[in-house]
Amino acid sequence: MSSTPHRPHALFAMGRRHRDALFPSAAVDRLTRLVDLDPRVVAEDFDRIPRLADVEILITSWGCAPLDGALLACMPALKAVVHAAGSVKHHVTDACWDRGLLVSSAAAANAVPVAEYTIAAILFANKRVLEIGGLYREHRSTLDWAAHFPGFGNYRRTIGLVGASLVGRRVLELLRPHDFDILLADPHLAPEEAQSLGARLVDLDELLAASDVVSLHAPALPETYHLLDARRLSLLRDGATLVNTGRGSLVDTDALTAEALSGRIHAVLDVTEPEVLPPASPLYALPNVLLTPHIAGSLGGELLRITRSAVDEVERYCSGREFAYPVTRAALATSA
Amino acid sequence: MSSTPHRPHALFAMGRRHRDALFPSAAVDRLTRLVDLDPRVVAEDFDRIPRLADVEILITSWGCAPLDGALLACMPALKAVVHAAGSVKHHVTDACWDRGLLVSSAAAANAVPVAEYTIAAILFANKRVLEIGGLYREHRSTLDWAAHFPGFGNYRRTIGLVGASLVGRRVLELLRPHDFDILLADPHLAPEEAQSLGARLVDLDELLAASDVVSLHAPALPETYHLLDARRLSLLRDGATLVNTGRGSLVDTDALTAEALSGRIHAVLDVTEPEVLPPASPLYALPNVLLTPHIAGSLGGELLRITRSAVDEVERYCSGREFAYPVTRAALATSA
Repeated sequence: MSSTPHRPHALFAMGRRHRDALFPSAAVDRLTRLVDLDPRVVAEDFDRIPRLADVEILITSWGCAPLDGALLACMPALKAVVHAAGSVKHHVTDACWDRGLLVSSAAAANAVPVAEYTIAAILFANKRVLEIGGLYREHRSTLDWAAHFPGFGNYRRTIGLVGASLVGRRVLELLRPHDFDILLADPHLAPEEAQSLGARLVDLDELLAASDVVSLHAPALPETYHLLDARRLSLLRDGATLVNTGRGSLVDTDALTAEALSGRIHAVLDVTEPEVLPPASPLYALPNVLLTPHIAGSLGGELLRITRSAVDEVERYCSGREFAYPVTRAALATSA
Repeated sequence: MSSTPHRPHALFAMGRRHRDALFPSAAVDRLTRLVDLDPRVVAEDFDRIPRLADVEILITSWGCAPLDGALLACMPALKAVVHAAGSVKHHVTDACWDRGLLVSSAAAANAVPVAEYTIAAILFANKRVLEIGGLYREHRSTLDWAAHFPGFGNYRRTIGLVGASLVGRRVLELLRPHDFDILLADPHLAPEEAQSLGARLVDLDELLAASDVVSLHAPALPETYHLLDARRLSLLRDGATLVNTGRGSLVDTDALTAEALSGRIHAVLDVTEPEVLPPASPLYALPNVLLTPHIAGSLGGELLRITRSAVDEVERYCSGREFAYPVTRAALATSA
């Protein structure tokens, strides 16, 4: 005689449009085999949500309200928060940690597309693909590209990664088959660990001065606000490319704009401060800048990778296993 | 008592500007330790070249004259042609094969940057990075990207590679860490070999109809002329991207222009027919087309990877070893 399996009560807590994009019927079917869930109910602000007192698992994503003490008091059975997105910082409060909730995130799944955008940006940047494409479009003839861009290409260039985050580590993996020297700056890493990741640990100023491409993968923390200020940006080599898929606040936008306007450096910016940039920003129209509106993370079909990661975590919880991607209060202090 | 090592007489045969770009002084130093070479002498058309009768190794590259019977008659000591570039088809004639010359090429080294351009193009194409960047630049606000580009992103998309050439195989390696289904069309490959390369062998029409991105890596041969004609291009899925880093002649440019103009498909074109495209070609200005002027191959600093490959081959020859990258008459019939 088999015992009745534990089927905890679960609740979606996210913006409704995210629920619709993240949980198509196949994903809902898989979830409802694991948990007691009404897929039509989506808590945005937790007002008038039925059976809150029974909720054991919150399945959260973008647009979930902060889980503060008052809200937690309405969910005495709550044990786990499974986040179907990257950072849990917006909604997982100190009250959640004090309560001892188990927290999981899909940050590893969300790191994949960001790293893919980054590696493509690096390969195109070293080769000046977009700049040459623009000149070809303008002149409609072939020019002496090596004279325009001395030493360009992807052979034996130096790539500097700022931050050994989940994204940074995935970028390191994707850089491995290429002929690069890789520098890494991260105040929380030991030199041996950097070496095992295929990189040489250096301090940030040295990294900026030595790299052909600098890519930012540090978290947004008080101590990383404007990490790249005017002084640090001035350390970049002439012709270097700055790639930012991390957070806009890592860079002093005015200082970056001045450097990009001068033509001294190139940039690939998926995040900016502010986001969206004001319509008058010169960054929109510079030939040495590729500007995209925060699309490197999971979008479109990539959301289903996050869905899969989150449902896998629910499955692990229901079968009494630990999360594959747990988030702890301590780890959160130095990550995104 | 050590015997005198064999120091064969060698000659540069290429366009002078390629000699200057490919053989900086460090490379010349390495060569002149191996062979008897006057680095100032560069044969373009072999007119008035001293000591032709002594030449045992020709170090060739772009711009080398065809090595026909008359020319070979002036080089009775010639035994080896080491090509510091990709295809040897332009200068290695039947007379060379009849004479039994050993031939090596740097096609494998030259495949690396082409594959890098291709992988970046695929990752950006699936994510619609350049199209979204263009819309962001135009509207200076964020739009509903998933509505513009349904299902976009790099998760579980189908990539179709046409041709298991050196470049095609390198692209297959670089695709491995990503979440793609990979199809391969190549009339000279067995299904098991495709499987060992991480792909499923299908015929070309099936590949075109099933792929989100189609990338061309077939050689330019009489039987591949306009391999993608109007009928085959019409098989591409709505919203598919065609990447051509192979040869312009593989695609019927007029038919492709019509498909791109309609907006039905996207394209990344590094090679075209003709090359350069006429100034009036619509392909220059379409937002769904990235056009670059044949830059995917080795350029700038990447030339030194070719240099290294060629000097390594000279070293192997001088020490009596076989070439690492030999070219045979038979292999040339089905390759670039």
